[in-house]
Amino acid sequence: MDVDIGPALSETASPGISREALDRLDERVTRAHERIERGRREEAFGYRSLSLPVETDPERLRRATASLAARDPEHLLLVGIGGSALGAATLADALTTPEDGDPETHVLDNVDPEHARRVLSAVDPAETVVVAVSRSGTTTETLANFLAVRDRFERADVDWTERTLVVTGEEGPLRRLADRHDLASLPTPPGVPGRFGVLSAVGLAPAALAGVDVEAVLSGAGEVDLEGSLYDCPAYAYGATAVALSARGARVNALVPYAERLETFGEWAAQLWAESLGKDGLGQVPARALGATDQHSQLQLYRDGPRNLTVTTVAPRERPALRLPGGEDTDGGTSDRPAVPEELSHLAGEDLGRVIDAEHRATVTSLSRAGRPSVRVETERVDARSLGRLLYGFEAACVLAGELLSVNAFDQPAVEWGKRAARGLLGEETAESRAVGDLPELRVEE
Amino acid sequence: MDVDIGPALSETASPGISREALDRLDERVTRAHERIERGRREEAFGYRSLSLPVETDPERLRRATASLAARDPEHLLLVGIGGSALGAATLADALTTPEDGDPETHVLDNVDPEHARRVLSAVDPAETVVVAVSRSGTTTETLANFLAVRDRFERADVDWTERTLVVTGEEGPLRRLADRHDLASLPTPPGVPGRFGVLSAVGLAPAALAGVDVEAVLSGAGEVDLEGSLYDCPAYAYGATAVALSARGARVNALVPYAERLETFGEWAAQLWAESLGKDGLGQVPARALGATDQHSQLQLYRDGPRNLTVTTVAPRERPALRLPGGEDTDGGTSDRPAVPEELSHLAGEDLGRVIDAEHRATVTSLSRAGRPSVRVETERVDARSLGRLLYGFEAACVLAGELLSVNAFDQPAVEWGKRAARGLLGEETAESRAVGDLPELRVEE
Repeated sequence: MDVDIGPALSETASPGISREALDRLDERVTRAHERIERGRREEAFGYRSLSLPVETDPERLRRATASLAARDPEHLLLVGIGGSALGAATLADALTTPEDGDPETHVLDNVDPEHARRVLSAVDPAETVVVAVSRSGTTTETLANFLAVRDRFERADVDWTERTLVVTGEEGPLRRLADRHDLASLPTPPGVPGRFGVLSAVGLAPAALAGVDVEAVLSGAGEVDLEGSLYDCPAYAYGATAVALSARGARVNALVPYAERLETFGEWAAQLWAESLGKDGLGQVPARALGATDQHSQLQLYRDGPRNLTVTTVAPRERPALRLPGGEDTDGGTSDRPAVPEELSHLAGEDLGRVIDAEHRATVTSLSRAGRPSVRVETERVDARSLGRLLYGFEAACVLAGELLSVNAFDQPAVEWGKRAARGLLGEETAESRAVGDLPELRVEE
Repeated sequence: MDVDIGPALSETASPGISREALDRLDERVTRAHERIERGRREEAFGYRSLSLPVETDPERLRRATASLAARDPEHLLLVGIGGSALGAATLADALTTPEDGDPETHVLDNVDPEHARRVLSAVDPAETVVVAVSRSGTTTETLANFLAVRDRFERADVDWTERTLVVTGEEGPLRRLADRHDLASLPTPPGVPGRFGVLSAVGLAPAALAGVDVEAVLSGAGEVDLEGSLYDCPAYAYGATAVALSARGARVNALVPYAERLETFGEWAAQLWAESLGKDGLGQVPARALGATDQHSQLQLYRDGPRNLTVTTVAPRERPALRLPGGEDTDGGTSDRPAVPEELSHLAGEDLGRVIDAEHRATVTSLSRAGRPSVRVETERVDARSLGRLLYGFEAACVLAGELLSVNAFDQPAVEWGKRAARGLLGEETAESRAVGDLPELRVEE
């Protein structure tokens, strides 16, 4: 990925960072980079994520997925949640085309009965393979959905054990299940938190079954060089700028891909950013949006609302062509081939990609003219190699941001309380579940 | 809708509002309500939105959509953007089921060439109807997509004029097009900004063609009584609490539906909130999320990140059943009917809806235990009548919030600059398009 942090400079933006402050920040980036490199060398928890492009073995992925891939499935059911779903979903949504023969990927990452029922009734088990992903193997939502999936297969009299791949740690219910039924399985990578697992079996095994060229993803990611200066390293430039803007008041980071295929990437990045950095009162709230669509929804606020926000646009430089009709014959026309109306003549013969690019440029300028900061992230195109670089770049940016903020980017202690409470509400009472309902109530009813 | 603002009280939350401050705020709510009622009586711009449940004529909708509905289409192509798409998409996503025979709704609300190509190649024009919506009739994205759609029909030799409904104002290119080709058409409602149009032809005409019972939506909306105290009116309780929390630092409002079918409602609400209130440095940034999924993505941040955020959960009280297998026979099992593993026995025989409800309650309590504010919005179930009430309730909440903030909730002046710039980049140069590219640049490349 390439970045342009110019629109975040205090020359035009408030909050914004001055060139002098950026130089000072760069000294901290250099030291943070040294810590990151040391963490990687020592294979410390979390830092190992940045070594996945070399550590992940595509041959092993291929072997583990071979028996399922050989079934030439029409549908892939991905059972996982959070980091165990978003990476694979990002890859599948960006890179596969069911209309052209790729399996259709369905993600069961919620415990919504209506949604689960719709997904399960939409797939024919005999044409479906299942990937269940949970690092701990204890995730309530994943286990509940897995039970529902298994039940669906059994009712259809299809042997689920021949069509299921499990990606999980060395212990836990899911691992025991895989052992007992001799399921295809892969381990989650050691030392890598779930949300950093996209470049491991967690993201790549389901992606491979969805039709993604995972070797190209890995090789793209492997091409990214991390260097100890933000001026030499787009990932660090992005992470450092985000931290600088956050410190100056931009506690919201609006993530705005300018490509429908990257909408799920925005979700993935939002998890990475929120769960890694949102601790100890620090971090930046990710606000997901989509360009150009959300210019008609959020731009008013970005431009004239609270000055607590920066915008990150993510756009490919190359897009497939879709030329609008018209061109020369825009005046006149006949009744059986009506002309492009005169008012639309500026669009006649135009390529749709040029329209979205124009909207993107106009929006960034519009923000800048209103004194609002933004950063542009660019990728060559939406393909496996470029996406590998983009994913790796965002991970590196996030790890750097954690260093600069002095937070542990690799844990998520604040979610445990709610998990224990939910578990207690469903099974044996816990201290946490006893507290549920013990809230001030002020109900207003119709 | 009903609301519980208890978890936003300063007794447990920071930022939070005290009961005394709430009483004082209620006096302002009473006066704001009087202004709102006066606005409605005088049919003032924007305020008329709140009279749509009585002003919208379902019979007229039926007549205008009859010729298209008679074709019993398999696909509905909705061409619009922002307020001209999100209302109908919200209704279609919440209330229709293509698996059960409703038309499949495809929304062309972007100018992404790859996405447009995929949508257009996925539909057979002979089985498709089109609704194009633009209040001004000049929206670049909508006109560009409409040209692409028309081209698709012409190439397939299907008469698009017999399959197109236009919803637009009294003038402009789209209106002239409708007149010239004698298309089915409906006017956008006078005095109603696009994002407040869901209960008019803007939202309901496409929704009706998608299979929504629009009379039930209208009648649900019409049941909502606005009363001059936040203690008597859930919509005002929500709007007033959001303003109070925002003034105390919660400049981000995380909108978290606990139902997949309401995910698009979250997008709709995010536009309403951002575009109506985000002006003059005021407003609240909407951050879209989805329960329970995003507990595994955003909850860490909500609970331990910056104290600039409040959470709004939106959940139905009733859900369809989906019972997990297991029950009594969870111990043992046989090789041809494997048991639910012991570790999952707490889920055996459980209803999936009870799981998501437990997660919801656990999450609200978890936030409260961490001293973070939230508001619970409840609706009876996800059906047409309840959704009508919910949509109307959020609109009323937003109008009230505009009054309390003293901003004009009905305009969106800050988006105009970018529109002129984009138009200039695509056609004749404008002052704005000349400024594009005239930004500080600081590129960092791989």
